[in-house]
Amino acid sequence: MIMIDRKTAVNVEWKGRNRMKETRWAIVGTGYIANEFAKGMQEAAAAELVAVVSRSEENGKTFAQRYGCNTVYTELAEMLRNARPDIVYIAIPNDCHFSYIMTVLEAGIPVLSEKPMVDNRRQLDAVLAKAREKDVFLMEGMWTRCFPAVRQARSWIAEGKIGKPLTVKSGFDIKPDVSDWQPWKGGISHAGGALRDVGIYALAMAQMVFPESPKEAHATMKSNGEVDESFHMLATYTDGRAAFLSGAFNQVSTPVTEIVGELGRILIGPEFWHPTTAELVMNDGTRQTFEKAYPASGFQYEIEAIQECLEKGEKECPYFTLTDTEIIADWIETTRKEWGIVYKADSE
Amino acid sequence: MIMIDRKTAVNVEWKGRNRMKETRWAIVGTGYIANEFAKGMQEAAAAELVAVVSRSEENGKTFAQRYGCNTVYTELAEMLRNARPDIVYIAIPNDCHFSYIMTVLEAGIPVLSEKPMVDNRRQLDAVLAKAREKDVFLMEGMWTRCFPAVRQARSWIAEGKIGKPLTVKSGFDIKPDVSDWQPWKGGISHAGGALRDVGIYALAMAQMVFPESPKEAHATMKSNGEVDESFHMLATYTDGRAAFLSGAFNQVSTPVTEIVGELGRILIGPEFWHPTTAELVMNDGTRQTFEKAYPASGFQYEIEAIQECLEKGEKECPYFTLTDTEIIADWIETTRKEWGIVYKADSE
Repeated sequence: MIMIDRKTAVNVEWKGRNRMKETRWAIVGTGYIANEFAKGMQEAAAAELVAVVSRSEENGKTFAQRYGCNTVYTELAEMLRNARPDIVYIAIPNDCHFSYIMTVLEAGIPVLSEKPMVDNRRQLDAVLAKAREKDVFLMEGMWTRCFPAVRQARSWIAEGKIGKPLTVKSGFDIKPDVSDWQPWKGGISHAGGALRDVGIYALAMAQMVFPESPKEAHATMKSNGEVDESFHMLATYTDGRAAFLSGAFNQVSTPVTEIVGELGRILIGPEFWHPTTAELVMNDGTRQTFEKAYPASGFQYEIEAIQECLEKGEKECPYFTLTDTEIIADWIETTRKEWGIVYKADSE
Repeated sequence: MIMIDRKTAVNVEWKGRNRMKETRWAIVGTGYIANEFAKGMQEAAAAELVAVVSRSEENGKTFAQRYGCNTVYTELAEMLRNARPDIVYIAIPNDCHFSYIMTVLEAGIPVLSEKPMVDNRRQLDAVLAKAREKDVFLMEGMWTRCFPAVRQARSWIAEGKIGKPLTVKSGFDIKPDVSDWQPWKGGISHAGGALRDVGIYALAMAQMVFPESPKEAHATMKSNGEVDESFHMLATYTDGRAAFLSGAFNQVSTPVTEIVGELGRILIGPEFWHPTTAELVMNDGTRQTFEKAYPASGFQYEIEAIQECLEKGEKECPYFTLTDTEIIADWIETTRKEWGIVYKADSE
């Protein structure tokens, strides 16, 4: 453990506005997503960052200091023993999730892991069994499901506003600076790829609307020589329902998710994976807009949703359950194996 | 032939603004599309409506009078003999196109036929052979290709503005009043269906960008008991290129076509099948907008493009060639047969 001088911990005082009891979070990882998460934590009510775990002491210190935390560990097990956080958030490369999740669950401590939570069904079965055995909370970090605009869209669907949902169109197609952006850097060695790193969001939009597994999924993939650089997928369901889904690191498409029903449609955006807006457009053209701007990254919604679960003793988040994770994980695994993409974890 | 009192032909005087030589058109059919076409003709330079053919004398008279024409026939052959138009436009139910096209071509007169031009490959081979034999102009009425906004999009692609095109997303999904709107009314007896009546526009957008036949096309279809009420299709091409295409009579989706390339994307709308706008959005977010509003239906662009062809002696329209028609017709026929949709023409 490395202690940081409290004087440098500038951001800690103004938190804990709404509740008496703070939820004590530990963050594993110090990369881009971990930073975004920590910014969200500063906006969340009653969230306290009590420990940071980084394999690099220097990175850990810089990160912890930035977010008003004074405790850094280079060993996960030591952190768990000493800090005893209420929950651990894991934001490290895909292929490292599994062993970290197992270690935290084994200690009887709840886990939020970044997507994709694990690399294959065998690992998924193991973490699900361990969470059940230890009777602790576990969630794959599909933060998108927690945004107010997405919850509004879901309510509109549940209320029958668009009638029977018929089609979902969702694409997470971006062209990042590959040298600068983490998930993509991983390639095959870190179990990366467009489907798992960004496409998973599009699949989660379809699965939110059509909660079952697709009847069939036809997909085309462009490889970067290691993993999928882009893919396009038609998922079909019974009775003509369908989803057009894509993910890409080589092209930019309009990042609005469209959910079309018999009576109208819902548009989620401007970037559907962390939206501020849900728009309900009826077939006659009349419109209704839900708008909720937010400060920082928006991770606060996921954080607050989870804290509510912990307070209530719930073991899954209702916005993105472990069943949701299972359906999407199987769908991804079937697809990538059809493409011939094999990860380290598959031969372990 | 039925002559109408010239005094009722109010719209004829103000035409023929730009050229001396009028192109003398005959229109077969008096329905919704024929009306839209005639409105476009009133906006086109040097286009004259010289004859109307309708099986109903009363409908023919009403229609002709509305557009300043004083000659109505109830028999196509009689019209061809007597009126000798420069070109015949055919806007009757799908299943009637073939025999009308053959009759007009046999008389050595050019033809513009509404989409889908014919019902299957056998009919297509026959009309193509007849047009070649008689050495006359023939075009399937994919008017969308003639709009300035679509031509601008095509120029941008040809100039390399978006780099290599990678993805096309196009859906013609509407929910018309079925009792009031003609193509849909046809059902199986008139060789109708979402794929042929509206989806064909989406396929034509893909084929404009990727001129070859798709490598594969996966599609899901919802039947109305006779034909396809809606469909969703993933068309794949070599090297990961793909198109998300749909057509529907039971749901309304955002009617903008998106063409995504390596460097940027093009949005065609607001209703891509008769657009006023093409927008070029570079990957860095910079935008360039082409806008061309037009009076009436917009058929004037197709009409003027064809008149230019006739003047130059060309036998095909460069915006939508007979090869374009062949590729899309084969694609549609393969797809509908996979769905088990069989038309009258297939057993003739």
